Amino acid sequence: MTLKRTHTCGELSNEQTSEEVVLNGWVSSRRDLGGVIFIDLRDRYGITQVVFKQDDEKLHEKAEELRTEYVIGVKGEVTRRGEENINEELETGTIEVTAKELVIYSRAETTPFEIKDDIATGEEIRLKYRYLDLRRSDIQNNMMLRSNAYQSIRNYYNGHDFAEVETPFLMKSTPEGARDYLVPSRVNPGKFFALPQSPQTYKQLLMVSGFDRYFQIVKCFRDEDLRADRQPEFTQVDVEMSFVDEDDVIASTEGMMQQLLKDVMDVVPNTPFKRMTYDEAMKTYGTDKPDTRFEMKISDFSDLVENSEFKIFSSTVKKGGGVLGIKVPGQGTIGRGAIDRLEERVKKETGAAGMIYIKQNEEEGIKCNVEKFLKEDTIKAMLEKAGAEMNDLVLILAGPKPDVYKQMGTMRLMMGKEHNMIDEDAFEFLWVTDFPLVEWSKEDQRYYAMHHPFTAPVREDLDKMDEDPASVRSRGYDLVLNGYEIGGGSIRIHERELQQRMFKLLGIGKEEAEDRFGFLLEAFKYGAPPHGGIALGVDRIIMILAGGKSLRDVIAFPKNQKAQSLMDNSPDYVDQNQLDELHIKLKNNIEKE
Amino acid sequence: MTLKRTHTCGELSNEQTSEEVVLNGWVSSRRDLGGVIFIDLRDRYGITQVVFKQDDEKLHEKAEELRTEYVIGVKGEVTRRGEENINEELETGTIEVTAKELVIYSRAETTPFEIKDDIATGEEIRLKYRYLDLRRSDIQNNMMLRSNAYQSIRNYYNGHDFAEVETPFLMKSTPEGARDYLVPSRVNPGKFFALPQSPQTYKQLLMVSGFDRYFQIVKCFRDEDLRADRQPEFTQVDVEMSFVDEDDVIASTEGMMQQLLKDVMDVVPNTPFKRMTYDEAMKTYGTDKPDTRFEMKISDFSDLVENSEFKIFSSTVKKGGGVLGIKVPGQGTIGRGAIDRLEERVKKETGAAGMIYIKQNEEEGIKCNVEKFLKEDTIKAMLEKAGAEMNDLVLILAGPKPDVYKQMGTMRLMMGKEHNMIDEDAFEFLWVTDFPLVEWSKEDQRYYAMHHPFTAPVREDLDKMDEDPASVRSRGYDLVLNGYEIGGGSIRIHERELQQRMFKLLGIGKEEAEDRFGFLLEAFKYGAPPHGGIALGVDRIIMILAGGKSLRDVIAFPKNQKAQSLMDNSPDYVDQNQLDELHIKLKNNIEKE
Repeated sequence: MTLKRTHTCGELSNEQTSEEVVLNGWVSSRRDLGGVIFIDLRDRYGITQVVFKQDDEKLHEKAEELRTEYVIGVKGEVTRRGEENINEELETGTIEVTAKELVIYSRAETTPFEIKDDIATGEEIRLKYRYLDLRRSDIQNNMMLRSNAYQSIRNYYNGHDFAEVETPFLMKSTPEGARDYLVPSRVNPGKFFALPQSPQTYKQLLMVSGFDRYFQIVKCFRDEDLRADRQPEFTQVDVEMSFVDEDDVIASTEGMMQQLLKDVMDVVPNTPFKRMTYDEAMKTYGTDKPDTRFEMKISDFSDLVENSEFKIFSSTVKKGGGVLGIKVPGQGTIGRGAIDRLEERVKKETGAAGMIYIKQNEEEGIKCNVEKFLKEDTIKAMLEKAGAEMNDLVLILAGPKPDVYKQMGTMRLMMGKEHNMIDEDAFEFLWVTDFPLVEWSKEDQRYYAMHHPFTAPVREDLDKMDEDPASVRSRGYDLVLNGYEIGGGSIRIHERELQQRMFKLLGIGKEEAEDRFGFLLEAFKYGAPPHGGIALGVDRIIMILAGGKSLRDVIAFPKNQKAQSLMDNSPDYVDQNQLDELHIKLKNNIEKE
Repeated sequence: MTLKRTHTCGELSNEQTSEEVVLNGWVSSRRDLGGVIFIDLRDRYGITQVVFKQDDEKLHEKAEELRTEYVIGVKGEVTRRGEENINEELETGTIEVTAKELVIYSRAETTPFEIKDDIATGEEIRLKYRYLDLRRSDIQNNMMLRSNAYQSIRNYYNGHDFAEVETPFLMKSTPEGARDYLVPSRVNPGKFFALPQSPQTYKQLLMVSGFDRYFQIVKCFRDEDLRADRQPEFTQVDVEMSFVDEDDVIASTEGMMQQLLKDVMDVVPNTPFKRMTYDEAMKTYGTDKPDTRFEMKISDFSDLVENSEFKIFSSTVKKGGGVLGIKVPGQGTIGRGAIDRLEERVKKETGAAGMIYIKQNEEEGIKCNVEKFLKEDTIKAMLEKAGAEMNDLVLILAGPKPDVYKQMGTMRLMMGKEHNMIDEDAFEFLWVTDFPLVEWSKEDQRYYAMHHPFTAPVREDLDKMDEDPASVRSRGYDLVLNGYEIGGGSIRIHERELQQRMFKLLGIGKEEAEDRFGFLLEAFKYGAPPHGGIALGVDRIIMILAGGKSLRDVIAFPKNQKAQSLMDNSPDYVDQNQLDELHIKLKNNIEKE
């Protein structure tokens, strides 16, 4: 380095006036004013204005060369700006550096898009030139927030006796849950490793080993079809504790989240966080991850309409379904066209067959789109149950459970967002508990674990495991923040027999269980402590804290929705000899582009 | 948890006398003495003695059931031990807990090996039951040392403005260096990801993005034939800095290592660490990773013997080879048989064709196994150059360079270990610098980068890149601790043209370079800062600090030398439908066991 920096571009102030300094950085912008060249010099720490005056001809000539994104070193003197030139938007805005020496480390061609925030540039080109996108200050801020979050999270766990232990990335494929990423073994022909979907079995084994409290911030992998906010690789905070029950894991997690928000957002959320059973969440919010930043709870009108002459209502209720409504405050004046458009959107986004509304305003009184089929008393009773007053709107869906709950949940979120009912600065945490242990899959004609096969059933429900598995509650808990599921965990099974019973319930035969999970069952033979834990999604947490809209805003080098990295063009074809060494070949019908 | 612990098993002392406490843990041992049952209860934090007296019959009966490795909860009263019963080896040795209540959480079958340190159990069975091996206190201590080391390392970098950024695990295969682990893509038929051998290109791109200082503790992967101290996945501290030269990276690394040793070993090594060029290291110690905990430097006798009548010496020197020796202090009295056995071993372990010795003792005077071919003056001159005195032994090898250096290096280490010349408690750091940029491979008839293709050449040597590449020095540096290479780094190339020249020198054609590293070359177009960094091997560092003999001592779930995990039997065969989805099939000749 020929001009080694003495300060960063975010550091200088009046304090250094008249000092000789060296700055290194990128030319963020250049202006020429009456022959004087002004450069905004940028690094991660800030921006400082550098001035090239005309008196040093050679230097000025060199400065003429400078273009945006050139990387330079400048030696110069810190000069106070006149009152009229102070730039309040810059931390260094009271000074500028009058250049005496200039070194150009690297020239730059015109970048494919401008390096500034809120640019209207396509996602594809931004991903292709990710290293340029990462120069934008909002993404850099997100990445720094993320860096600080790591330290805060680890400090918390390290300060509470948790041991950080690394678990393997090359592990056994246990196809239960999402699809594994596989890694062919060269030394063991025909055999494959899998990348971890989570270090679940390893952390349980660490408990069997007596590590007592374990944590790790770790990459996990799922080969799933990608939606907007999924990535093939994701980061989780992974935690496990011995000799604990639900309350211990929950309290420790709350402590960590509180510390994290304090450290990186300067916000201290109240603890304990609210808790709600899965049942209550579904009935009240129509989802197991309710956004509790706004109310708009679901009202159940089923008992009011079960004998109604409006067949859609009464037959739904008689078949065990639900007639549910939400009150949208202040929307009772909605017009005919608007409500029609709303119904179309609701049907499209929720999948509901139709939408009933009751609106109430000074001009029209009470109006309902099926008022000829409903008694006035019934309509009024529904308004009352929904807590609707003058100028409120009530939207109603009817259908089988649990679908109708989910449709209501989707509609509730639509309404909350549309009518700005959500406090964007709030952080609302909620624990959802008492999940069903298993769900029946009609498609596969078998039960699947709602969390995973290692989740313990609630003791009192153990008797029902054989005759009525769907009614058994698990000892699982999910942590929800602002309507996003940011983590989930459970008290685990630590008894060999119960674990075997669970596998059986999931249709995993004895031999198969032995083959896949034999090591865990074997480990339980030699003294396993009661234990439980949690895994928290780092990407999503940071996205929420950063106010980002997409996981790609908080991941340095993300993949697109085809699991591709547009920057380095991966995945890519490989040499035949690489495949030969791995004892695999492509299927015959694969044609290279 | 029915008996929730109030204290850990390492916590109680006289301070809690008479308090009612609850402990949870494993039965480490049980003794029955006059009807009273004594249990050593163990958890990660320590061991506490629990006493079941006979007065509570039911409790005593339950305690009768207890066997080694049962997991239990005990409620009881802290009782001071009598003077004569104090166990000074236990932190909790002044007290015991008189049990009042007992819960058995989990029973244990007899473990395949005893849970104690220094057991003589085969590696295979220990790896198969790794979760039991991990119960041993020496491995637990290693893992806790490792956990503390992570925090220390991160605190250092975080405290010095380094941003922690996660880089992708699913990346592009760039077969330059070791073999990649490949991951077939389901969504992109026929294409593959590779697991990172290091995040090298990503961290350089982060510098191009202006992150300025980056660090990460990260898993890396190499599909190499495994030797005793290699693992397919390993952990490195990965660091990169912008606007720096060698001294900056070295100083920052020394600061980290100093902090680490202070935090986890309570030892503060002096900085700056010693430095030595590659040339000097090879000539003085016969290796580029010298163990400088002991002297025994190599003496070069070539000029003394180039005209010797002993043809082996003179012809070696004339062909450009070397005649080198080391002095082994105090071994001048070695007998005929011992020296013959030594020669055999030296030949076997170093690959040398033969060994010459000169010994000197009171009884025999000066003796040399080829004294009839050598002048007495020459022998004396060699003794003098080696600094040998009465009762010292000088061992001499002759051969072509650099082989003879390497053979000397191996022999030096043999002698150092054999004669206890190594201070096992010392931590001797050494930087090795000025490596050759490239090495010629006779086998492949091409140059390979000595570090990697992104390492910058020394500026002054740039001219020689075309006509005499082998003489060009790189700006690389290796950190050596006690004879282990624990890290390596360099100042990188940040100029597109120079990088292209380097690829060309390595025989990577323009198209191939574009295909593999086009994104990096492209990135250098848009303003790249001068930058450099280092990667440090965490597993090896922890192994040295823990005084371990094998990497397996400091990795929670290691693989064996066939890259297998004996515990969960991975890698393993997978279902055909998994392969189908990935568009691959096994080669025809693979037969499943």
